[in-house]
Amino acid sequence: MYISKRGTKLLENYQPLVKAHFLCAENPWAANVNPDGYINLGTAENHLVFDILKPKLNASPGLEESHTHYADLHGMKVFREQLATFLSGTTSHQITADKLVVASGSSAILDMLMYAMCEPGEGIIIPAPYYAGFDHDLKTRVNVEPIPAYTEVENDFKITQEVLLQALIQAGKRKIKVRGILITNPNNPLGSVYSEQTLQMIIAFAKENKLSIISDELYARSVFGKRSYTSLARLTEEAGVGINLVYGFAKDFGLSGFKAGALYTTDEKILQVVQQLAYFMPVSNATQKILYNILQDEAFLNYYFSENQLRLAAASEFVHTKLNEAGIATYPTEAGFFVWMNLSKWLSAYSFDAEMELYNHILETGKVNISPGQVFHSATPGWFRLCYARKPEMINEAVNRISEALGALKQVSV
Amino acid sequence: MYISKRGTKLLENYQPLVKAHFLCAENPWAANVNPDGYINLGTAENHLVFDILKPKLNASPGLEESHTHYADLHGMKVFREQLATFLSGTTSHQITADKLVVASGSSAILDMLMYAMCEPGEGIIIPAPYYAGFDHDLKTRVNVEPIPAYTEVENDFKITQEVLLQALIQAGKRKIKVRGILITNPNNPLGSVYSEQTLQMIIAFAKENKLSIISDELYARSVFGKRSYTSLARLTEEAGVGINLVYGFAKDFGLSGFKAGALYTTDEKILQVVQQLAYFMPVSNATQKILYNILQDEAFLNYYFSENQLRLAAASEFVHTKLNEAGIATYPTEAGFFVWMNLSKWLSAYSFDAEMELYNHILETGKVNISPGQVFHSATPGWFRLCYARKPEMINEAVNRISEALGALKQVSV
Repeated sequence: MYISKRGTKLLENYQPLVKAHFLCAENPWAANVNPDGYINLGTAENHLVFDILKPKLNASPGLEESHTHYADLHGMKVFREQLATFLSGTTSHQITADKLVVASGSSAILDMLMYAMCEPGEGIIIPAPYYAGFDHDLKTRVNVEPIPAYTEVENDFKITQEVLLQALIQAGKRKIKVRGILITNPNNPLGSVYSEQTLQMIIAFAKENKLSIISDELYARSVFGKRSYTSLARLTEEAGVGINLVYGFAKDFGLSGFKAGALYTTDEKILQVVQQLAYFMPVSNATQKILYNILQDEAFLNYYFSENQLRLAAASEFVHTKLNEAGIATYPTEAGFFVWMNLSKWLSAYSFDAEMELYNHILETGKVNISPGQVFHSATPGWFRLCYARKPEMINEAVNRISEALGALKQVSV
Repeated sequence: MYISKRGTKLLENYQPLVKAHFLCAENPWAANVNPDGYINLGTAENHLVFDILKPKLNASPGLEESHTHYADLHGMKVFREQLATFLSGTTSHQITADKLVVASGSSAILDMLMYAMCEPGEGIIIPAPYYAGFDHDLKTRVNVEPIPAYTEVENDFKITQEVLLQALIQAGKRKIKVRGILITNPNNPLGSVYSEQTLQMIIAFAKENKLSIISDELYARSVFGKRSYTSLARLTEEAGVGINLVYGFAKDFGLSGFKAGALYTTDEKILQVVQQLAYFMPVSNATQKILYNILQDEAFLNYYFSENQLRLAAASEFVHTKLNEAGIATYPTEAGFFVWMNLSKWLSAYSFDAEMELYNHILETGKVNISPGQVFHSATPGWFRLCYARKPEMINEAVNRISEALGALKQVSV
């Protein structure tokens, strides 16, 4: 039967990260049971917290008849209220339930937000390296063009006015109207938080160029470094500009399988449009109720987040030490589940093709999946992201394998 | 800030059924507590089964660590397998997990299916009266045009070849390319099942005109009349044509708040496209696990469905008797949660404006929300859909109020 043109376009969709994820899932490493299996350190998931969450998740959800029937399709009111309280604490900024839309994951949130914000073919500036999934989220259904603003290793991957301006100029050359700027803070894949000074510069830039600000703060509560995280929700209000804040339960709560995301927006019309679209992308009341049970237990949340931070900090220190011992240079991690590391001295040539070759070498020889910088639009080849929020035995085995795989290659001086 | 044209279009969206639903939800009738509240019989939900489901829903879901992480975004394999077993039994046709896509409700399923099947502006024939939400599902994001095939009260609302042909001719006059035909069986709002003969005629018509067949069988297990339901999944296979079957947990399982729907398709490319789109519209693994726990308990399912049928049958008989006693003619109900009734003798004029006037009169004077036939594209004014799957006290009160509201009006001979 007939397949539409828009449908046919999707058949060519290629998501390397997702593909490798499922390859590893079919034959996963386990210390004793399957010592030759794949180790997947390419997916940003927190595998350190299930024991804490388990009793909460497996208690009776306490569903009432009302939960089995229709409720607001952009999130039950009682759930949005509890989430507003949580996000107010997290961002140090008063967030209200009426400005929240809950939907089936942060990809769904971005899809809807882009629908509301951009005509097809228009663009959004994203400082690079950036989360690889943004390309998919922006391009697939809503046809919005991500415009990378390339930060530089020589400048410590800082977002500067010059970097943003270059992106705007590039978009202009491609005749793409830019509608907004998307910041990920804490950042994926860098694992760092942005200083207040940088964020203020971004706000000023957005204001000057009439760009909407979208702030993906999915890792807000997974910060363990010396610097604390500052929410753009607070700073934008102080500056008198609007904000579109994306949050979700995948990262801070280790619940990527729950597919629950949220948008907080100060723009009344964006809110109305996204509420309309949320009709197609709702979160089950059952899942909302389980998450509500977690959110309303303040003592549990305090314990959970402090323990989570300790575990992430310990795991981060462990992997940095191991990698450095193996001669691999790492970018300091302050937040998130990843270490951004420099393997450029093992590239056969200073190119992204050579980076992909190195990626495949590590995947095939070492059976470890890490992510090559090019999928994050890294400006220079040779950087990789490794997700370390796993048990030490696994990290130990993985780094040994990577080290061995690299050892089989000739080191080139960069 | 800028709002896109496609976003702005949504701001004009108007869904009368959804709006009235939430109006009633704000001030709901309760026999003793709020005797003057609104009674909402406009929403197709089953309010008769929560007591049976409650122990299942409120048991520990038994979530394991894997459920908290990413799984197939078109439904966990183990869940799709269990659902395939259930649907094979329901449709008397072998349904396999690899041809199933699970997503956040049947509106999401239709949205994705239409994306894959039609270019924007193309059309789908739907025998009318039809579920009012189809207009919203088809038009909102994917811009597909529903083409009503008007059945006639004089011919017992039968779908005939003539009726389908007229729709095709109408589409041609509007220069709309028709890609498929969408059948709801058991039917909403009629509450009837289609004979095998009618379904065979539809298949032949689709084949002759190269139309894809979409069969919404959401009420497959809510059948209690003398005639049994026949799935188009079985008949299409026998006829050697493809099928796109839409199912969900909202109706047969009384779980509209769980927003879990599924597509079974025999078309490999449609499957691939919808799998891609399902990335944005997944169902939480937590909800899938709760539904899995229900689906894998065969003894429970047998008890649940037989009890559900008994309760629906009793409630249907009760409402028909009450309505007929009040002088209201009803169309026989064999399935579903609704009675299709004829209030045309109370219309002030034989027009849809008068029908809306009567609707508002009953809503404002009687504080009962029922649905006027025009939202279902009824061919003739004066028909209404009343959802009766509620406790007898509520139905009793509602029919008394409707009767009183009608009594205040002059009857016109039709």
